[in-house]
Amino acid sequence: MDFASCFPIWDKLTAEEQESLSKGASLRSVPAGTILHNGSSDCLGLVAVRSGRIRAYIVSDEGREITLYRLFEMDLCLLSASCMMRNIQFDITVEAEKDSNIWVIPPDIYKALMEKSAVIANYTNEIMGSRFSEVMWLLEQILWKSFDKRLAEFLLQESAMEETISLKLTHEKIAAHLGTAREVVTRMLRYFQEEGLVKLSRGTIELTDLKRLRKLSQPI
Amino acid sequence: MDFASCFPIWDKLTAEEQESLSKGASLRSVPAGTILHNGSSDCLGLVAVRSGRIRAYIVSDEGREITLYRLFEMDLCLLSASCMMRNIQFDITVEAEKDSNIWVIPPDIYKALMEKSAVIANYTNEIMGSRFSEVMWLLEQILWKSFDKRLAEFLLQESAMEETISLKLTHEKIAAHLGTAREVVTRMLRYFQEEGLVKLSRGTIELTDLKRLRKLSQPI
Repeated sequence: MDFASCFPIWDKLTAEEQESLSKGASLRSVPAGTILHNGSSDCLGLVAVRSGRIRAYIVSDEGREITLYRLFEMDLCLLSASCMMRNIQFDITVEAEKDSNIWVIPPDIYKALMEKSAVIANYTNEIMGSRFSEVMWLLEQILWKSFDKRLAEFLLQESAMEETISLKLTHEKIAAHLGTAREVVTRMLRYFQEEGLVKLSRGTIELTDLKRLRKLSQPI
Repeated sequence: MDFASCFPIWDKLTAEEQESLSKGASLRSVPAGTILHNGSSDCLGLVAVRSGRIRAYIVSDEGREITLYRLFEMDLCLLSASCMMRNIQFDITVEAEKDSNIWVIPPDIYKALMEKSAVIANYTNEIMGSRFSEVMWLLEQILWKSFDKRLAEFLLQESAMEETISLKLTHEKIAAHLGTAREVVTRMLRYFQEEGLVKLSRGTIELTDLKRLRKLSQPI
């Protein structure tokens, strides 16, 4: 995969703009667990994912986490360059969830391009619209959906993403994704196990009834 | 107040762009309660608030509401033109909360300008960033803040906005702002009354201890 394919608008850019982007970008290899961006103190720049998986989340004062969204191959992470956008007044943390290869475009380079080019500015707008939509989806989940449905949906998503029904996930990690306490996750997983939906063993959650999990995850 | 002052970037626009915006805009007077935009079925256009107050909210399948943000004089409502933005994949409802005077710029006119002008595209980006930040703030409130704090904060905000300590608000309305059930509001207000923070009477909530309400609304 090459750099240009992260930008669906690549062909609409001038040769100069293309050069500025590709020369400015540096390829980095980051091991799983690396914090790429940490709140307003950081301003890494625009991140384009070449391979791996990136997670964006927020953290409460008490250290509780909730996953906002994940980025996969060819996705762009805009909020790791939040310093270059006025009016973005919230702090997110961005970490490599798997070993990843990323291109980083410094904020000043991207900002200069965005200020001159309507194409780049509008594309930036589109990316922000996508992330905004993901956060709205999350907000609606939290507001209107009960925790059993959210947990069922999360397990199914993980299973699809990792292509296995045997998930290596601690209850702690699930709690961090879903913005709740570990005890809440443990209690619900035990309930799922009693219902025959999952089988719990040390460090592993096996999905034993995908059909009923899917049914549970859907709105009534 | 004139139309141009809704656009801090007005002076950076070409005469042609200015003309296109002002000629395209139509001034409308809408009584309180008017639904200006209702989910993805509508595409009113960009709304600039001349006077009054606009509320943006989402509604669950069961009809529960929660206020996302409010717009005041000189604010722009971008999401009432969500059709012109790809990747915005959520439905909000926009209503006039008070009798309002608004300028409406049709989506095709605004879109054409945005596609050509980097200044307008970047400004649009800024507006989206503001709304995104407001929704992130709300998400954090819901996730990490208990309901008594949110209610105290809401009452104080209403009091500041209406410039009175005697609020004419039904428990139903408060529930719709805060995304909860009426019973939850009633129960908490009664608790506030027992604590001497408010005094309840038919259709009115009087804030009787602003100092303690403020203290309660703050994070620990």
